[in-house]
Amino acid sequence: MELESKLSELGKNLKSSLIRELLKFASLPGSISFGGGVPDPDTFPRHELAQIAQEVTEKEYKYTLQYNTTEGDDELAQQMIKLLERTYGITDVSRDNIIFTTGSQQALDLIARIFLDKDSICFVEYPVYLGAASAFRMTLTQFETIPLEDDGINIDYFEKKLEELDKEGKRKNFRFLYTVPNFHNPAGVTMSLEKRKRLIEVCNKYDIIILEDDPYGALRFEGESLPSLYSLGGPERVVLLNTFSKILTPGMRIGVIIGRADIVRKVNMAKQGADLCSPGLNQRIVARYLERYDIFAHLKPAIELYRKKKDTMIKALEENFSDIEGTHWVNPTGGLFIWLTLPEEFDTMEMFDMAKEKKIYYIPGEAFTIDDSKSSSMRLSFCLPSEEQIIEGVERLKKVVVEYGKKKGLI
Amino acid sequence: MELESKLSELGKNLKSSLIRELLKFASLPGSISFGGGVPDPDTFPRHELAQIAQEVTEKEYKYTLQYNTTEGDDELAQQMIKLLERTYGITDVSRDNIIFTTGSQQALDLIARIFLDKDSICFVEYPVYLGAASAFRMTLTQFETIPLEDDGINIDYFEKKLEELDKEGKRKNFRFLYTVPNFHNPAGVTMSLEKRKRLIEVCNKYDIIILEDDPYGALRFEGESLPSLYSLGGPERVVLLNTFSKILTPGMRIGVIIGRADIVRKVNMAKQGADLCSPGLNQRIVARYLERYDIFAHLKPAIELYRKKKDTMIKALEENFSDIEGTHWVNPTGGLFIWLTLPEEFDTMEMFDMAKEKKIYYIPGEAFTIDDSKSSSMRLSFCLPSEEQIIEGVERLKKVVVEYGKKKGLI
Repeated sequence: MELESKLSELGKNLKSSLIRELLKFASLPGSISFGGGVPDPDTFPRHELAQIAQEVTEKEYKYTLQYNTTEGDDELAQQMIKLLERTYGITDVSRDNIIFTTGSQQALDLIARIFLDKDSICFVEYPVYLGAASAFRMTLTQFETIPLEDDGINIDYFEKKLEELDKEGKRKNFRFLYTVPNFHNPAGVTMSLEKRKRLIEVCNKYDIIILEDDPYGALRFEGESLPSLYSLGGPERVVLLNTFSKILTPGMRIGVIIGRADIVRKVNMAKQGADLCSPGLNQRIVARYLERYDIFAHLKPAIELYRKKKDTMIKALEENFSDIEGTHWVNPTGGLFIWLTLPEEFDTMEMFDMAKEKKIYYIPGEAFTIDDSKSSSMRLSFCLPSEEQIIEGVERLKKVVVEYGKKKGLI
Repeated sequence: MELESKLSELGKNLKSSLIRELLKFASLPGSISFGGGVPDPDTFPRHELAQIAQEVTEKEYKYTLQYNTTEGDDELAQQMIKLLERTYGITDVSRDNIIFTTGSQQALDLIARIFLDKDSICFVEYPVYLGAASAFRMTLTQFETIPLEDDGINIDYFEKKLEELDKEGKRKNFRFLYTVPNFHNPAGVTMSLEKRKRLIEVCNKYDIIILEDDPYGALRFEGESLPSLYSLGGPERVVLLNTFSKILTPGMRIGVIIGRADIVRKVNMAKQGADLCSPGLNQRIVARYLERYDIFAHLKPAIELYRKKKDTMIKALEENFSDIEGTHWVNPTGGLFIWLTLPEEFDTMEMFDMAKEKKIYYIPGEAFTIDDSKSSSMRLSFCLPSEEQIIEGVERLKKVVVEYGKKKGLI
């Protein structure tokens, strides 16, 4: 059987994640990887979770081993309502505004499916979180890319672009803007309060939904939290995505959508077709954990660990890259990532082969574009390597950059 | 914000599952429900699963609490390879031919997404498993419905239909035929060996993929297993879906696709966008269970329980419905369902209101059509009610049928 002619347009278009391909070698001995954005498994409260897993499987088997509802565990929803108040000061959320998904990735996919057609316009940031890009791309939609600055999305650019598209008669195709306002993946930047307020205004004006994704918000190293877009714009304007992947464990695969009841209802119908339900066992384990333990108290040592590693990486970057003119990075106030931009002639994808030789791995900026365009940036993740590896890794990276720069006549 | 104009074509088309709406009242006191097709939770090996859940969370946390791979747990894949040999005598399956999904429902959704466009032709049975219909419908594809007979799909009809469509120049739009060959949901029928062989021939001739869904195959009450379509047609022609939902626990949400490596690779890419990965915890629990216990030995009492309940329902149907001419049912040799067809003027959806009054619940045949057309059939599930409830429930059903029939002047 010849497969290609049988595939759908999407089937033909699909390609494997660049990151997976790139990181195949990162586990070879002697390698140092700044690639993976996964949390350190030693930060997971495994003893507590193991105990709870046993309990809820044994005693609550009629729920945990049976089909779940599509919207997910009511107990977890009650815990979530408390958590939203504690995290964001949001108090207007009820059960109808909540649906749990198989990780945030499924939330992105379901939202994309209910909103995006081929001729829709979906606004994303550059660089864009690649999981979001891969979900949205499956609808074969149109993208408009809005650049990020050190304090978040470039609103002037966004407004000008909207004006332009509106003049072209495309206002009816506007759907949503996807944004990661806190400790952006991959850019590490956080949207300023002023920009948050302006963003709501602009989206109100053009009737654009804001899809706010906040997986890292609780991983703050310093300073005060800024109000979420959801708090500022309300459910009339904002759909909020959250997840337990970065604050508890990604293995449970629990994402959550907070939004207007009619939107949540549509997501529910799409989820019925997509997987019927996510496992109740996992949701009940997390619900019980939240009931018994203070998740933020648990998180403190992990945040302290990440902060120290981040400081080490920033210091290493200062020591190694300050002398290369045109190099730029932002010291993140939370999260897991630093976005290192080299002088614009650098192609970090091409440079990756040299990095591989020196056994230092990063994610080329190209992976965070919608259309695989060349990039002089790279994502560096500091959460998994040790501090020694971070220092050694940045030194290796410097050697790669110098070698590549010289070979290309760039430095 | 006005939602409707923002929704995608799919978003506008989505509707909630009829079953969910119908069964809202089935838990009222005094109700007897033949509606739900879920296994009896007391058949789940909860002690063993609870123990394993604790162990693998505590000791294997680096796998179970971390992100999983998209294709799923390698240990479960090894167990699956053994299980496929034991269940079907299939020996040519390797790791590249296997991907685990969030229940069979996600398998149906991902397969639909990589194969179906709006102008594709997707062949389904009537009645059709409604989870499949809801997944396939999300692609907005075209359907052709092939009636079921007591020994499976009507192959003569199928062949004639293909010939017709081919003459209309639509051969290039043929994608797959979805079939549940064993103990069909909802029809309860099993495809004969002769038909299995002919089906392969016909699909070879017209180059149509067979999507074989076999969730109930292991729940056989009597007789010998028939060879699977996958065994007969091989991976060149057949993609096989399986699940642990009916033989172990649905709560783990573990489905599996067995197919050609290039098809599995495409599914993998779609799954990366759809949810990145299913939880490794659940997969490892099941892998360890399969390693330690004989799943078929565990299943024996459950099958015996279902068989007895099925016998009770068949006997009750004979006692109550033999005198209503034009009524038809098949005594299933396995599975969870009996398909009761009333004389053709009956509309089981309309009759449902009367059934509700008598607190007896079934699923109207309309739920198992692609286009919500009227049906004189209903699905009766015998797995959850007690034998006493089955006897009492069938008597109530008889009263409903007589009352409805008289009111409509049908009997």
